[in-house]
Amino acid sequence: MTPDVIHQVTMADVLAEHAAHTERLACICGPYRFSYEQLDERTSRLANALRELGVGRGDRVLWLAQNCHRLLEALLACAKLGSVLCPANWRQSSDELAFVIRDSSPAVVLWQERHIGEGLSAARDQVGADSAAIWIQHDAEPGSPGAYEEILARADSRNPQALPGAEVPEGDAVLMLYTAAFGGRPAGALLSHRALVTQGALLGSLQGIGADYVYLNCGPLFHVATLMTTLATFVSGGTNVFTPRVEADELCRLIESEGCTGAFIMPPTMAQIVELNADGRYDLKTLRTFAGKPEWTAMITPDDSPWGRHPGGYGQTEVMGLVSFGALGPSVGSHGRPAPFLRVGILDPAGREVPRGETGEICVKGPTVMNGYFNRPDLTAERQAGGWHHTNDLGRFEHDGSLTFIGPRSRLIKSAAENIYPTEVEACLKTHPHVADAAIIGVPDRTWGQNVLAVVVVKEGENLAAEEVIDHCRSHIASYKKPKLVEFVDALPRQGFAVDYAALDERFGGGGYPGTGG
Amino acid sequence: MTPDVIHQVTMADVLAEHAAHTERLACICGPYRFSYEQLDERTSRLANALRELGVGRGDRVLWLAQNCHRLLEALLACAKLGSVLCPANWRQSSDELAFVIRDSSPAVVLWQERHIGEGLSAARDQVGADSAAIWIQHDAEPGSPGAYEEILARADSRNPQALPGAEVPEGDAVLMLYTAAFGGRPAGALLSHRALVTQGALLGSLQGIGADYVYLNCGPLFHVATLMTTLATFVSGGTNVFTPRVEADELCRLIESEGCTGAFIMPPTMAQIVELNADGRYDLKTLRTFAGKPEWTAMITPDDSPWGRHPGGYGQTEVMGLVSFGALGPSVGSHGRPAPFLRVGILDPAGREVPRGETGEICVKGPTVMNGYFNRPDLTAERQAGGWHHTNDLGRFEHDGSLTFIGPRSRLIKSAAENIYPTEVEACLKTHPHVADAAIIGVPDRTWGQNVLAVVVVKEGENLAAEEVIDHCRSHIASYKKPKLVEFVDALPRQGFAVDYAALDERFGGGGYPGTGG
Repeated sequence: MTPDVIHQVTMADVLAEHAAHTERLACICGPYRFSYEQLDERTSRLANALRELGVGRGDRVLWLAQNCHRLLEALLACAKLGSVLCPANWRQSSDELAFVIRDSSPAVVLWQERHIGEGLSAARDQVGADSAAIWIQHDAEPGSPGAYEEILARADSRNPQALPGAEVPEGDAVLMLYTAAFGGRPAGALLSHRALVTQGALLGSLQGIGADYVYLNCGPLFHVATLMTTLATFVSGGTNVFTPRVEADELCRLIESEGCTGAFIMPPTMAQIVELNADGRYDLKTLRTFAGKPEWTAMITPDDSPWGRHPGGYGQTEVMGLVSFGALGPSVGSHGRPAPFLRVGILDPAGREVPRGETGEICVKGPTVMNGYFNRPDLTAERQAGGWHHTNDLGRFEHDGSLTFIGPRSRLIKSAAENIYPTEVEACLKTHPHVADAAIIGVPDRTWGQNVLAVVVVKEGENLAAEEVIDHCRSHIASYKKPKLVEFVDALPRQGFAVDYAALDERFGGGGYPGTGG
Repeated sequence: MTPDVIHQVTMADVLAEHAAHTERLACICGPYRFSYEQLDERTSRLANALRELGVGRGDRVLWLAQNCHRLLEALLACAKLGSVLCPANWRQSSDELAFVIRDSSPAVVLWQERHIGEGLSAARDQVGADSAAIWIQHDAEPGSPGAYEEILARADSRNPQALPGAEVPEGDAVLMLYTAAFGGRPAGALLSHRALVTQGALLGSLQGIGADYVYLNCGPLFHVATLMTTLATFVSGGTNVFTPRVEADELCRLIESEGCTGAFIMPPTMAQIVELNADGRYDLKTLRTFAGKPEWTAMITPDDSPWGRHPGGYGQTEVMGLVSFGALGPSVGSHGRPAPFLRVGILDPAGREVPRGETGEICVKGPTVMNGYFNRPDLTAERQAGGWHHTNDLGRFEHDGSLTFIGPRSRLIKSAAENIYPTEVEACLKTHPHVADAAIIGVPDRTWGQNVLAVVVVKEGENLAAEEVIDHCRSHIASYKKPKLVEFVDALPRQGFAVDYAALDERFGGGGYPGTGG
């Protein structure tokens, strides 16, 4: 497909824009400080080096390393080549790492020795000759053969995008992120230039991310929740500061010295910072972020952007982060409003949109939707059935046009002609003050197909009758969704965090699920 | 081209989204109040009626009438058909109206009798058999034959988008707006679904336009400056209130009764409102807009959105409004920063990007750029040379990546190898405290090709020597741009507002302009 060069903007175009027009720093990482102009040159060098190594259109470059500016460089080098960067979770076991190496079949692996060399070495042994990837150690000392900085220094510095016919269509994938397992193994969601630029632009405007934004990359960059802000900062021409460590002292030092205005800080780290900085040794006032405990709020500047006032929303990796935003105006629903460039439908299992107020699968169309899963045509076709991206999550539109996310779709119960999502009924049960835990299964019924059976754990010291459980549901959700049968247990069987529904089906006679033949 | 239905969102998709998910009013106009669901049905009826009348893909529907909700309906009906709505200036002379009818060669004209029936009648007589358009009077009494409401009542209410293969590619034009004359006659800029949705989404997030926004459409809707906010309100699921009259009393009444949160109000109307409402008879506190005189500011709620704090930017019709926004972060330049989904280049006449700090033509790539001018292939090719949209405007990037708009490109002077834009030198001259007016022309020079000659009007009661004029320029812009010759006149010759450069060339020996052969 010939790109429509006058109407498209790729990640490489965004870089070219900033390189031409701003003197600002694009990234800071340990001793490295690069302007957008320098980033442009370094990524051209890397792109040319990767091409020399055989990386072509659509080929994967796997990043197995901690946070570092070189991850952003690798993404932009891939953008210039039409290739795909896959930043994967380096905290995984050797078996899991081996799976990722096999599954992504990368042309090049960018890796690091520090902290993860041992696990990676075991994974490489496991994969053996199954992978033809070329391995480049990004944290090798400059001067050592094959080191990242050596390769850059030797490479051609001309922009490969300057070659005639080198334009990359904005709809091509540039990023691949592994997502939760469906059917047992993770899948790599392929995200396009357009998805990254579009989401970055919206997120930037809602979070007040401008060219003066300095984002501290201290969350895991293989996760879209951190990476989407990295990209919003890049797209807006701000500065990304990278750190491999989530240590309160190091974060404080960087916030103060670089004047960071944003950071991905989770509550435990926040608590550490409050303790560490009780004496005010660090000035963290540049940081515009959510208020919290009074000691925390006194250290930072409360974020008064639309996002700061109404953070969060509903999303997933396959849509480049968020579908809906609390920041997009008042909402009755719990998860805000869809981005205005998306079409969001709530679909029943037959693929028809249900009226507002009714529960169904959240489905999405629009520029931030993934192109598909790498090398998983069947799973991709399933998720894209009927021209919608199926999120596998349940939701409902409220009367004001806002969205409520209910939970993962998981299994479906069919009673008469009605579709009943166990997740929805479970969420209702858990709002009862005497319910500690609950699970819903379907049991075969000759007349209705299936009946709803609730398995309930009652809170210690409380009593609950089956009739009360049923009444509670009848008064909160549609009557046909209420359990007809209730069983009480001391605890739900679980595998890890997940309820073991197979065990419940076996114990309480569950079955007859639609599409399972029994 | 087959649309990529999973990644695209057209204006019809936006309407479907709101119709399915919100109970809010989409539009209010006189006695009419329609929800998004009703708007969806009415526009399906209109689309089917238009198709029956022969309106097909890419065909133009011309709107020659005042502000009315039916303009939005016509746009959305066109969106459903893949046709193009052209809202044209109804205030023009009969000759100008005749030009627009001929040039846009519409399949259907939606017109009104009130105020403009007479001028339109003369224009129709002038065009005569040259136009095969079907005329529909939108303000005819319901019941009269061929009236808009009659046609809707009789039409099929099913959504034409539901037919297989009826999908419209988001890159297709849906809106056509006539823009300033180049080469003597206005040209119709064709703007795509994607341009409208993308710009609406960004503008909405910068202006804090959400589903609770109520926009009073009191500026001219054939102008992008008003229409872009109408569309941002639509895209965000808010309510558009239409009024054909810009009368202070009527505006106040509507703001109070509908709780309008936004409006397109120019300073003269603002002054009228301040006078009319001195006694506080109307409560205008819902209106979030720019502060002004204390009496005005006390009546309204000052807009604290990013746009409210830093309004404006640089733009033109051909890019669906704005290219750069003051709201996108701090900027040294006078016109803010480019939208993050655009690539903006400053190009020299050879089509090469110039370094930051240097002046050249502002050129743009990205999703909001027009598809071209209707039926003007040569002009379109000229504006899109080298894969950039050429704005015909001069600008400069400052060191912080922000943009300064200098003025229209108009003529170019070439001295040695240097390109000199008269507009830039004139802007510099006008900053001299003793200069009342100034124009720059080029005079042929055997050695340099051309020399710069300044024609200066000195302020009454002041004195100015040629050497001072030259020194002033030397100290403010690059030395090669300074005038070598200075002439003083009492007044510049003008045609309307525009300086008559041909008269100046003739009087002072101008000529030798590049590309003119003399």
